[in-house]
Amino acid sequence: MKVIRSIAELRSELKDRRDTDKGPVGLVPTMGYLHEGHASLMRKAREISGTVVISIFVNPIQFGPGEDYETYPRDEARDLALADSEGVDIVFIPTVQEMYPQPIKTKISVSEITSLLCGASRPGHFDGVTTVVNKLFNIVKPDYAFFGMKDAQQVAVIEQMVQDLNLDVTIVPCPIIRESDGLALSSRNVYLKPEERAEALVLSGSLRTAQEAIRQGQAETAGEIRTHLRNYISRSPLADIDYAEVLTFPELAPVEDSYRIVDEDRTVIMALAVRFGRTRLIDNALFQPKVGESHV
Amino acid sequence: MKVIRSIAELRSELKDRRDTDKGPVGLVPTMGYLHEGHASLMRKAREISGTVVISIFVNPIQFGPGEDYETYPRDEARDLALADSEGVDIVFIPTVQEMYPQPIKTKISVSEITSLLCGASRPGHFDGVTTVVNKLFNIVKPDYAFFGMKDAQQVAVIEQMVQDLNLDVTIVPCPIIRESDGLALSSRNVYLKPEERAEALVLSGSLRTAQEAIRQGQAETAGEIRTHLRNYISRSPLADIDYAEVLTFPELAPVEDSYRIVDEDRTVIMALAVRFGRTRLIDNALFQPKVGESHV
Repeated sequence: MKVIRSIAELRSELKDRRDTDKGPVGLVPTMGYLHEGHASLMRKAREISGTVVISIFVNPIQFGPGEDYETYPRDEARDLALADSEGVDIVFIPTVQEMYPQPIKTKISVSEITSLLCGASRPGHFDGVTTVVNKLFNIVKPDYAFFGMKDAQQVAVIEQMVQDLNLDVTIVPCPIIRESDGLALSSRNVYLKPEERAEALVLSGSLRTAQEAIRQGQAETAGEIRTHLRNYISRSPLADIDYAEVLTFPELAPVEDSYRIVDEDRTVIMALAVRFGRTRLIDNALFQPKVGESHV
Repeated sequence: MKVIRSIAELRSELKDRRDTDKGPVGLVPTMGYLHEGHASLMRKAREISGTVVISIFVNPIQFGPGEDYETYPRDEARDLALADSEGVDIVFIPTVQEMYPQPIKTKISVSEITSLLCGASRPGHFDGVTTVVNKLFNIVKPDYAFFGMKDAQQVAVIEQMVQDLNLDVTIVPCPIIRESDGLALSSRNVYLKPEERAEALVLSGSLRTAQEAIRQGQAETAGEIRTHLRNYISRSPLADIDYAEVLTFPELAPVEDSYRIVDEDRTVIMALAVRFGRTRLIDNALFQPKVGESHV
């Protein structure tokens, strides 16, 4: 496994590998502090790519003022050990100076689907994400790029950018990975105090029970599911709901409370963001009427 | 010469040419109605590329409301003949539907250097330019892309995008091509009535005489040059000045009237936009203190 910190060296290494026909290049963009969710992306990448690149970069321009850019958890040594154990070929760890040698004047924005959910709570966040992901795509020129469905809106936004800008890369969305008790894996889970960690189970719990309610015919409309999610999460005194929404996926179009998700053939997403103290957690589940729902 | 109208076919053709090692790919993006200025870009491309691609696409999203998108001159048969005579390998002529199969939600914006000159007169224009050029770069993946310096701000904006987004392409700016009497070539010159065509010489005339004034020590500051340009252009009763500016290049930073261009070592641009009736013409010249100026 090569650890590369400069764009020029990465380009040269990738050119060598392409010239010797090492097969498709798979990119797993991460912010580091890797966990089993990232490992699942690397395994998927390893499965279908000749060269697996992971990038580790805590991207300042996707953090808003007062967000956790400075305190975002970092552990390079552990990250490298994990990447190595997953058979990654190249770890790209640029500095901020390497990625932004001069103040960046160019911004990539995706409208509409960034106006709600995390886009509404974190203004400018998705511009930072699309801009850095576009940079990474231009640097690595991957055939495949792997993203976790925990950040479902991010997947939708990046897929939109890829289509709109004719980027020659296939986005591979990968399932959410959870702790055995249901909590979706996140680098930010490390922020949680023990009592917050316990109550954080309301996110996955609300999604799982919403799916059960749909299956048993107790919830049929978007409004009923919203109510279910909010009621369930409100059992936790520490939980402060940012949003608990039902939207179409991947268009992220709002649906009325009266929208009968069980009668329509569009995929919908149940999407949550909940704060515990200073820690903001997200989770989601898809409901696909034609093929059943994904399991939480 | 191949004429290709679909993105998929273009990608496949370029892949074949790369697989058989036809050398670097040069792209000349145009809006068609080709003239000797475009021909000079094709010749430069032919000189340093194994495969020369020109694109012909009147890009709707870079035209503002009330601008000349519908009436922009088009002549495909003549364009193809000219491209063929210049030894172009591939002409890419997509439809609007091919380039924008769905309403585009993704936008690329470059800040600061788009806030003045044509960016001020044509709000949203450069977002349309950077977005479509980025799309073309992603489709063609050129090693070189050729742009005329008549659109000097466009060159600066695209170069900024290339650097900020780590696009793996070298921008090759090419000199302005002029009629024998000095008028800068432009597809829009066809709009000019005979008396407007005659008076349009004030653009190149003001730039040429400004350069003479600098050389002879009669103009030394940005303010003196601005005054010279405005006075000269105002000789034409039909001319309506949009801007007549002096800025640094390629940063396009404004300079004070008192800025002594002859004493500084920064390149400056004298940039003009002048309306004749409904036709808006642009022209410019660089002044490079260390190496002399470019000739108009």
